[in-house]
Amino acid sequence: MLLRWSPYTLELRQPFTTATQSRTATPAMLVELEHEGLIGHGEASMPPYLGESEASATAFFTAAARLLAGRSDPFLLEDVLREIDSLAPGNTAAKAAIDIALHDWVGRRLGAPWHRLWGLDPARTPVTSFTLGIDTPEVVREKARAASEYRLLKVKLGRDSDRALISAIRSVSSTPLIVDANQGWTDREDALRQIEWLATQDVRLVEQPFARDRLEDTAWLRERSPLPLFADESCQRLSDVPRLAGVFDGINVKLMKCTGLREGRAMITVARALGLKVMLGCMTETSCAISAAAQLSPLVDWADLDGALLIRNDPFEGTRIVDGKVTLTDLPGIGIVRRSDVCQPSAVSR
Amino acid sequence: MLLRWSPYTLELRQPFTTATQSRTATPAMLVELEHEGLIGHGEASMPPYLGESEASATAFFTAAARLLAGRSDPFLLEDVLREIDSLAPGNTAAKAAIDIALHDWVGRRLGAPWHRLWGLDPARTPVTSFTLGIDTPEVVREKARAASEYRLLKVKLGRDSDRALISAIRSVSSTPLIVDANQGWTDREDALRQIEWLATQDVRLVEQPFARDRLEDTAWLRERSPLPLFADESCQRLSDVPRLAGVFDGINVKLMKCTGLREGRAMITVARALGLKVMLGCMTETSCAISAAAQLSPLVDWADLDGALLIRNDPFEGTRIVDGKVTLTDLPGIGIVRRSDVCQPSAVSR
Repeated sequence: MLLRWSPYTLELRQPFTTATQSRTATPAMLVELEHEGLIGHGEASMPPYLGESEASATAFFTAAARLLAGRSDPFLLEDVLREIDSLAPGNTAAKAAIDIALHDWVGRRLGAPWHRLWGLDPARTPVTSFTLGIDTPEVVREKARAASEYRLLKVKLGRDSDRALISAIRSVSSTPLIVDANQGWTDREDALRQIEWLATQDVRLVEQPFARDRLEDTAWLRERSPLPLFADESCQRLSDVPRLAGVFDGINVKLMKCTGLREGRAMITVARALGLKVMLGCMTETSCAISAAAQLSPLVDWADLDGALLIRNDPFEGTRIVDGKVTLTDLPGIGIVRRSDVCQPSAVSR
Repeated sequence: MLLRWSPYTLELRQPFTTATQSRTATPAMLVELEHEGLIGHGEASMPPYLGESEASATAFFTAAARLLAGRSDPFLLEDVLREIDSLAPGNTAAKAAIDIALHDWVGRRLGAPWHRLWGLDPARTPVTSFTLGIDTPEVVREKARAASEYRLLKVKLGRDSDRALISAIRSVSSTPLIVDANQGWTDREDALRQIEWLATQDVRLVEQPFARDRLEDTAWLRERSPLPLFADESCQRLSDVPRLAGVFDGINVKLMKCTGLREGRAMITVARALGLKVMLGCMTETSCAISAAAQLSPLVDWADLDGALLIRNDPFEGTRIVDGKVTLTDLPGIGIVRRSDVCQPSAVSR
């Protein structure tokens, strides 16, 4: 198997602001896995705050390419992905890129999209939320108006101006909201009061109220909260899931954190068995990684798969959002085609 | 989709004796799922003590055939199998027959065996145990000698003569043993002493020491036992798995109890995430259900898939046991062919 990769800068349509930072682009890597004349596509999206970079991904892909060059059967996902995961700690986005490319290759070889190989009904995809970045009330009102085609909006909270932000949205839109505190809250009584108010604003769930390790405070809040609490930063990998039962009401599965589709699917299975709800999330990503995640979406309760909508230079076509709903293609693998007007990865594997 | 079924009596090569009963045949049902000219095979094995029968299976298949007649896509396993499961409580073997037939159909349509669709390496299959029924020391010695090709023997315990039985085997064989108490032990101190002795006889694990609901006694025993304890009767369905972590060391997954491959695979995923080991077991079954279970076997620690070796009228060829090891075929679906000299299911669906 031959692995190729090249850096790709995701240009954001609007600056993206959360409680801790603001940016206008996200670095990514596009990868291709070639074997027997067939190519599978993958992608690593690397928002800087998560610690991966072009340099770290290049180092990881170099080692992975060496490993894959010695393997002749992309179908052996269980073993190959375990070995890829063992190459180095972290590097979860780079690992996800390889997982996605391998899945794309296998699905293309079988002539079937993964939602079909997993036995899922493509009609059962959820609506996706659309994220409104933090901004002035005027701009947020404008963004909320412009997002009228979506049936669920997401807002990043964790600032003093949170209620003003929600009120600004509610002045122009009655679309249900989900909110992401991004670990931004510190006092649990304050958090409870905030959630009680949010519940009066047709907010449907709260992501990651406290710092990732504050599970005891989260369990305290969950017992009292009128809204379900979902783990994001507290839930990176499959091994995090068991301890979150009884602490959160659900988990947010993101391919870039959990190393890809194979582990992501296992996380959904385990979460369900432990009574946890599941949300499928993303970074800013092209239609490559979004379409991969969307293959899993008939299995989840909530989707937050707006990543490709936020960029202006998407090199792929695949899953689309139609009337606010995740809409799968019939294309094999992860269900994408490359747009012909964008150049291909050119870096060579070693 | 068209479902056909017919009763089939599995004739045992030797009478099969456990702590509670003895028999010379096992009733089964063979099913065929036909769609677009392609046929998938399935099987329900129904040892009488589990409560299913030709009558109960016929009633279930009649209802299932009606449901399947209204569905046009066997690939939609997630929804179809949920609906099949919801038709009636229990009937787990009948449900497994349909799950197996659907998987066989889908794999045949894709032209790939399920171990391949699941990304598993067929070289990673485990050795299987071979079960020696309870009998006189003379007969057991003879059986143990005759089983010299196997690398793991299984013995059903739970009688006063347990130690004499083990000693009889050890007088002629040094093959490692696993033992199944089949809920037969009642006193926990006695059980611990028995296990401590068994550990001196190269016994590798103990299945189901106490009655299925005695989880507290089992956890007590596990803390003290030199051998790992595996759940069999305590673990029927996926929903049983979470509460067994910390009580047992592992679970025994059997398709006839858990409704088939789809739920069985989920049980393995959940067990692993909770730190439980996994064993894949069976009833007396033809090579149809055994080959289906064997597709999962690269994922497990122990296999007890000798069911088809115990019958004299196997209508299928598929997974074989070679030098004691589960050996998968490259055939698509569940990996079987029907032997031409055996007649086919003739009952019609309604």
